[in-house]
Amino acid sequence: MTRDLTITEVRLTPILVADPPLLNTQGVHQPYTPRLIVEIVTADGITGVGETYGDTKYLELARPFATKLIGRQVSDLNGLFTVADEVAVDGARVTGQVDVGGLRGVQTADKLRLSVVSGFEVACLDALGKSLGQPVHALLGGKLRDTVEYSAYLFYRWADHPQGVAAEKDDWGAAVDPAGVVEQARRFTERYGFTSFKLKGGVFPPDEEIAAVRALAEAFPGHPLRLDPNGAWSVETSLKVAEELGDVLEYLEDPTLGTPAMAEVAARLREAARGDSGEGDGERRAGLPLATNMCVTTFAEIKEAFTRDAVQVVLSDHHYWGGLRNTQQLAAICRTFGVGVSMHSNTHLGISLAAMTHVASTVPNLHHACDSHYPWQSEDVLTERLTFENGRVTVSDAPGLGVELDRDKLAVLHRRWFDDDGSLRERDDAAAMRIADPEWATPPVPRW
Amino acid sequence: MTRDLTITEVRLTPILVADPPLLNTQGVHQPYTPRLIVEIVTADGITGVGETYGDTKYLELARPFATKLIGRQVSDLNGLFTVADEVAVDGARVTGQVDVGGLRGVQTADKLRLSVVSGFEVACLDALGKSLGQPVHALLGGKLRDTVEYSAYLFYRWADHPQGVAAEKDDWGAAVDPAGVVEQARRFTERYGFTSFKLKGGVFPPDEEIAAVRALAEAFPGHPLRLDPNGAWSVETSLKVAEELGDVLEYLEDPTLGTPAMAEVAARLREAARGDSGEGDGERRAGLPLATNMCVTTFAEIKEAFTRDAVQVVLSDHHYWGGLRNTQQLAAICRTFGVGVSMHSNTHLGISLAAMTHVASTVPNLHHACDSHYPWQSEDVLTERLTFENGRVTVSDAPGLGVELDRDKLAVLHRRWFDDDGSLRERDDAAAMRIADPEWATPPVPRW
Repeated sequence: MTRDLTITEVRLTPILVADPPLLNTQGVHQPYTPRLIVEIVTADGITGVGETYGDTKYLELARPFATKLIGRQVSDLNGLFTVADEVAVDGARVTGQVDVGGLRGVQTADKLRLSVVSGFEVACLDALGKSLGQPVHALLGGKLRDTVEYSAYLFYRWADHPQGVAAEKDDWGAAVDPAGVVEQARRFTERYGFTSFKLKGGVFPPDEEIAAVRALAEAFPGHPLRLDPNGAWSVETSLKVAEELGDVLEYLEDPTLGTPAMAEVAARLREAARGDSGEGDGERRAGLPLATNMCVTTFAEIKEAFTRDAVQVVLSDHHYWGGLRNTQQLAAICRTFGVGVSMHSNTHLGISLAAMTHVASTVPNLHHACDSHYPWQSEDVLTERLTFENGRVTVSDAPGLGVELDRDKLAVLHRRWFDDDGSLRERDDAAAMRIADPEWATPPVPRW
Repeated sequence: MTRDLTITEVRLTPILVADPPLLNTQGVHQPYTPRLIVEIVTADGITGVGETYGDTKYLELARPFATKLIGRQVSDLNGLFTVADEVAVDGARVTGQVDVGGLRGVQTADKLRLSVVSGFEVACLDALGKSLGQPVHALLGGKLRDTVEYSAYLFYRWADHPQGVAAEKDDWGAAVDPAGVVEQARRFTERYGFTSFKLKGGVFPPDEEIAAVRALAEAFPGHPLRLDPNGAWSVETSLKVAEELGDVLEYLEDPTLGTPAMAEVAARLREAARGDSGEGDGERRAGLPLATNMCVTTFAEIKEAFTRDAVQVVLSDHHYWGGLRNTQQLAAICRTFGVGVSMHSNTHLGISLAAMTHVASTVPNLHHACDSHYPWQSEDVLTERLTFENGRVTVSDAPGLGVELDRDKLAVLHRRWFDDDGSLRERDDAAAMRIADPEWATPPVPRW
C-alpha cells in the first residue's frame, strides 16, 4: 500500500517538432522548434512526463538539475526551487540578467530556471498522481470545472516555409490579409469549435491588423476577440488601435513593451473611458483591458505592474512561472489585486496542453479562454492527441496527467534533434525570416 | 489500491476548553473558551480531524456546511470555497459586514466563512493524507524544514480567574509587572526552550509595557522580542514606543488600529530611520518593522496595506485565511511584495498546532518564529500532546496530520459545552473582566 516515491531515474530527451511558417513581429517560425521532454521514474517503476522549452540554454540547466533529483521524493515539489537555486550556483554561465530578447518577455537567470523547474514539476506531479491513483488536478486541490475553454490562436502565415522542401508542409495555406485571417478562423471553428479568437499581430502596419480584426468582428459578431502585437507599438499607436477596436476587443495584449509604457496606455485608456459620457456600460467605461505575457512574466515584475494598474489581465504560462503550483499562486495574487487571469501559450505539445488544462481547471478566477498553439502542431509525442470539442479540452480524471508517451514518436523527434547541425536547436524567428529576406533585421521597438 | 475518497459522514463537536486568566486590552480570558472539532469520515472509514473557532456564529455556518460535504471527494479542496459561497446564500443571518469587534480583526461574513472552511480543509487534508499514506506537508508540496520554530507567547495574567473555584487553576501564578513577565519568560524557556518572546500588551499604560520589554531585553540579551498591544495605541503613542524600543524589538505588532493609521506609523518610522545618520545597520535604517494580524486578515485587505507599505510582516492565521493552502497563497503574495510572513495564534488545541506546523514547514519565506498559545492550554483532545523542544515542533511524517483524537477527552470537553448555560459559548473577554470590575467597559480606541 505504501508507495516508494523516491526518484531513481530522470530522462531528458531534447526533440525538434514541426512548426508551420507562422509570422510575428520578430520574423517567422522555423520549420522545427526545440522542446525538452522530461521523464521522472520512481523506485516503484512509475514514470511521470513533463515538457518545457528545449533551446540549449534550457538544456544546460536541465542536465545538472536532473542529476540532483535522484534520491529525492517525487512529492517534494517545494524542494524543486531549492534545487533550482543550487543549480544556479553551480552553473556559472547562467547568473544575473540574460537578455536574449524575443517574445518571451524579460529573460533572467531566475526565469530560465523556473522554465526548467516547470518541466520537472509537471513530471513529478504526473508520477505522483499515478503513484497515488489521483489525477493531477486533485493534487492541485481539485477541478472546479470539467472542461477548459481555449481560444483559436490565429496567425498571419505563409503557405510554405522559406526553406522549401526541407520542411513539413501543412494544408492551411497562407493568411496575410483580412480575408485570409477570417478564412483561418472559420476553419478553426469548424475543426475545433473555438468561439473566441486571438490574432497574433505586430506583423503588418496597424491599419491592416485593425482591418483584420474588424473583418473577424463582422464574420463572428459578438465573439470575444484579442489582438497581440508582442509590444510592437508605441504608446500613441497603442491608443489609436485601442480607440479603433475598443468596441470589439475582449482585451488588447501587449500593445507596447514594458510596464511603464503599458501603465501609460492603461492610464490614458481609463481617462478616455471616464471622459466618455456616451452609452458605454460600466466595464467599457473602465477602459479597454490590457493583457500581458511580456511585461509580467515573473513574480519580481508583479509589484510595479499591479501598483501602477499597468495590466488588467495576466496571461500566465506555467513554463515561465515555474509550474502548475506557482501558476495557482499567480492566480491568487491576481485575484487579490483585482487583476484577471488567463493562460499564454508558446509552441508546445500535448503534455503541456494537459498540464495547462489540469491547472486551469483549478483556478477559480479564470474568466477568459486560454491560448494554445496546439492546433498548429501536427506532431506530438503522445499515443493519443488531446482533442478540442466546442473549443474545450476535457479535464482528465485518470491518474496523473492522463497522457501516455509514445516512445517511437519520441525517438523520431529526438533523432531529428540529434541529426540537426545545430541551426535549429535554438529557436530564432529572425534567422528564418532572413532566408526569405536577406536584409531582414529584428525590427526596432516600437516598430510602429 | 484505489481509495474511495467520498465523504460519508461529518461530525461537529463543539467543546469548551480551559483557558488561564490571560489579560489583553479587551479584558481577560474566560475560564473556558469555545472551539469546534471537525471530523470527516470517508467511504473507506478513514477519519480526518480539524479544529476552528467554536462561538455560535461559527457553529451556525459549520452545520449547513457539513451537510453539503456529504458525497463530495475529500480531495476536492478548491470546491470547499464554492460550498462556502452556497452556505452564505442559504444562511441569511450571515451576510455583509458583521462587526463583532474584538481581537480578530475585521469581522465580515466572508471571514467567518473562511474560518469555518479552515476547520473542514484541515480535516479533509488529514483524511486525504491518511488515505494516500502521505503526511499533510507532502500534500502541500513537501516540507522545507524538519522543525518549526515558535516564540514564547507571554501574557500579563492573574493567578486566578475572577470566577474563583468555578474555573481550572494552573500553577503559573500572576504576572503584572516587569519582574513577573521576566519570570514567566524564564519558565517558558526552561520548559519549552523558546528563544524568542512575544508580550501581549495593551493592558497597562505604555510606559509599564516598555519597562517590561526592557526587562526582557536585559534578561535575554540578543533574543528576538515582540510587543503586541492589539491596536490599543494612537499613532503618536505607537511612534513613542517604537522610538523607545526600536533597538530591541524584532517587530512591533499592531500598535494601532486600521491600515491608514498603521501606514502613517510605518511611513514616519521609515522617515525617522532615513533621517538617522547614526550607527544603525541597513535593516534598522529601513525602520522598525510593523507586523499585523488585525489590519490584514483577509485577502481583501491586502491591496491597500501592501500598496501603502503599511505592514512589513503579516502574521497569518490559517483559520482566518481559510486553511493551509490559502496560507501558502498568502505567503506567496507576501513574498512577491517583499512583505515578511509569520503565524498568529489565538487559543487553540493540538490539531491546529499540528496544522500550523505542517503548513509552516512548507513556506519558504518564514523568517520569524510563529506564535502559539498552545503552552497555555492544559487540556487537549489528542491522545498525545504535541511537544516543543528548543522552542520547536517537529514536523510529522506520519500520514495526515500525525495526531490522534482521544474520544474520551473530547467527550468530557463536549459535555462541558453541552452543560454550559450559554454564558461561555461566546468568547467575551470584557464580560469576564466585569466579574472583577463591574465598571469595566471595552476601552475606547485608541486607549492610549
